[in-house]
Amino acid sequence: MPAPTATIQQHEYPNGLVLVAETMPGVQSASFTLLVPAGAAYEAAEGLDVGGGAATMLCEWITRGAGDRDSRELLNALDDLGVSHSESAQTVHAGFSAATLGANLIPALEIFADIVLRPRFDEEEVEPIRSLCLQNLRSLEDDPGSKVIYELRRRHFPEPWGRPSPGNPEDVARITPESLRSFHRAAYRPNGAILGVAGAIDWPRLRDAVGALFGGWERRPEPRLSERPAGPRIDHIARETQQIQIAMAAPAATVAGPDYYRARAAVAILGGYSSARLFTEVRERRGLCYSVYASYEGQRERGAMLSYAGTSTERAQETLDVMLAEFRRLADGGVDLEELDTMRAGLKSSLIMAQESSMSRSSALASDWYFLGRVRPLDEISAAMDALTPESVSSYARTLLKPGELTILTLGPTPLDVKLPA
Amino acid sequence: MPAPTATIQQHEYPNGLVLVAETMPGVQSASFTLLVPAGAAYEAAEGLDVGGGAATMLCEWITRGAGDRDSRELLNALDDLGVSHSESAQTVHAGFSAATLGANLIPALEIFADIVLRPRFDEEEVEPIRSLCLQNLRSLEDDPGSKVIYELRRRHFPEPWGRPSPGNPEDVARITPESLRSFHRAAYRPNGAILGVAGAIDWPRLRDAVGALFGGWERRPEPRLSERPAGPRIDHIARETQQIQIAMAAPAATVAGPDYYRARAAVAILGGYSSARLFTEVRERRGLCYSVYASYEGQRERGAMLSYAGTSTERAQETLDVMLAEFRRLADGGVDLEELDTMRAGLKSSLIMAQESSMSRSSALASDWYFLGRVRPLDEISAAMDALTPESVSSYARTLLKPGELTILTLGPTPLDVKLPA
Repeated sequence: MPAPTATIQQHEYPNGLVLVAETMPGVQSASFTLLVPAGAAYEAAEGLDVGGGAATMLCEWITRGAGDRDSRELLNALDDLGVSHSESAQTVHAGFSAATLGANLIPALEIFADIVLRPRFDEEEVEPIRSLCLQNLRSLEDDPGSKVIYELRRRHFPEPWGRPSPGNPEDVARITPESLRSFHRAAYRPNGAILGVAGAIDWPRLRDAVGALFGGWERRPEPRLSERPAGPRIDHIARETQQIQIAMAAPAATVAGPDYYRARAAVAILGGYSSARLFTEVRERRGLCYSVYASYEGQRERGAMLSYAGTSTERAQETLDVMLAEFRRLADGGVDLEELDTMRAGLKSSLIMAQESSMSRSSALASDWYFLGRVRPLDEISAAMDALTPESVSSYARTLLKPGELTILTLGPTPLDVKLPA
Repeated sequence: MPAPTATIQQHEYPNGLVLVAETMPGVQSASFTLLVPAGAAYEAAEGLDVGGGAATMLCEWITRGAGDRDSRELLNALDDLGVSHSESAQTVHAGFSAATLGANLIPALEIFADIVLRPRFDEEEVEPIRSLCLQNLRSLEDDPGSKVIYELRRRHFPEPWGRPSPGNPEDVARITPESLRSFHRAAYRPNGAILGVAGAIDWPRLRDAVGALFGGWERRPEPRLSERPAGPRIDHIARETQQIQIAMAAPAATVAGPDYYRARAAVAILGGYSSARLFTEVRERRGLCYSVYASYEGQRERGAMLSYAGTSTERAQETLDVMLAEFRRLADGGVDLEELDTMRAGLKSSLIMAQESSMSRSSALASDWYFLGRVRPLDEISAAMDALTPESVSSYARTLLKPGELTILTLGPTPLDVKLPA
């Protein structure tokens, strides 16, 4: 008996909100991911300028009481429905995700409609939230591996596309309740918002319920952002840590662009799985550090390859040199068929496994819609992977290393000697 | 059409290895979790005493070449099968887990049979592994939140049941290849090992394949461990961190014991979900810190409630005081029906969701077998949860707080004043 296949359906409401849903046969759970274009980048919108950390503070504030419920009643209502949920501001979006049993999906969406449309904005909550956000910034100082990636992104992507969502202590200390409210009015809007839902769902009922819950959300003009160059490209942050953190970024193809699969393949072969080049050369052959990787990050207008390693002071220079040498070797020497096949096997296997989780499907649906305005079927991804050749990936890899566009950041007690590949 | 239900089957091979497997309808993936009783606790076995960190070093060494494959060929073979895998030493077990497509399950098990039974023990790999393990210990110094939990467990559980698997720099520096080999000979044994498998599987074929692959693994006597008291109960680790880490442990019921569900309920109500008491009092009302929780840890002979918070120097004393007051309030005042219902809703929902992931099922099968010698059906867990009453949980909560058996550890620039509840 062949397994019944998943069905994907979508609907755009008059206010611009897009619902994209997948019925997964044989599961009892249902999950959703709501992306609202109100991430940290919009803190810098023209005429707004609410300060770094506002998107995160707002995300927290709106979950502290909404509609008929105060803060405690709201969290309790979600717990009573057995909903596991998370809310967080990323760079572009404020993201709200939840997983529960299919029978509790619509009641959970009702609560999130309150959160997004009818927050109570109780002013007593603001100081505890500010205090939390300051605590979070402090804990980041005790977590150099995360800190270096936030700071790398800030230097690599043009402002505001690399803004760290935790903000900074100066701004968080001075953000006012009124500025948070005005950020909510300007940035929380249905045009540009995407709701991905996957699992045990009844499509007509879901489509109607989402229309009833979110239909009254009024369109607003898209806030205007102006881009500014970031940098510096080569930098060091002095900290008395035990290890030196090394992070690098290079421009790569966009998700919607023609070179997307070639870029993903090149990055994965460099450092995306356990026998990938960085892992073999840095971790296994030389024992330089435990964690080393390269990964792809897509934004709508740009993509990047990010790479990271954390190692001891004595071995940091060698680690950086090997990372740069591997980057050079990929650009100069390209990839071979064996590596390409290994990469394909891993990617296909993880794609199929991700199809089995309602949470990862709901997130993939929303993300595909954001990047492409449609959902990319598994068959299309498979076919695109199969069409890659060592030559096509190698010719892309040659364009990946542009020394002038490489961002390299280190964090630790001593700076390193960055010998940029020629 | 009702979803076809999962079937659980088990088999004990003549050498003592237990296979416990669940056929999950409608999934394409298959996952396994192999638990070998060769975790960090066994480093201290009588006549062995290989030094802290040996279990972790050995776990890494055996994956670096086994059977016909050298290190690189082995990782490559797993990547070619699209296997995502992890190997790590925990306190009791060395754990090997993998997820892949159902069609690749048996080829993946073949590779892991090589790893466990026929490691190459190439001596050239030892120095890079030692270096990695030392790096890992250093990175732990930059990760105070993880460090404090390792150090809490070491103080709370009787030696060797709280041994930190990363070991310590002195021991890792001196562990010899010969001592790792002798640890492998003594501790890697089929009697006591459990293989949990879940997903798209063919039971008769799996049972025969596991027999063929692991049947030649020879029984060995169980290494003898002697328990010693740990401690100190109240302690502080001085570190120049931005935050103070607070960690506590208290004895709780065992997994197999009659009070298990009452203990799980009491701990969850204290700090296991987003409207639980610690979260409400510490995070939401007072904004004292971002992360605070209480969780249950089961070992076969003992259980514990662990609790954690990380906060700034100025707010640490208040955080600790609130945590202890909540602990006291739970013991004195018990729980009410509303809380119990909320806790039940969350636990049932997460249990059902966990049933949909082959990875979490394979791990639950192996873990149930370890603790109970059987797999606990979902219905049995549901019925036990339904049978709980506010009175039964409250009467358990009264026994949870035994001030003389509470372990409290802080890590940061300054010690706190620990006012033990009377």
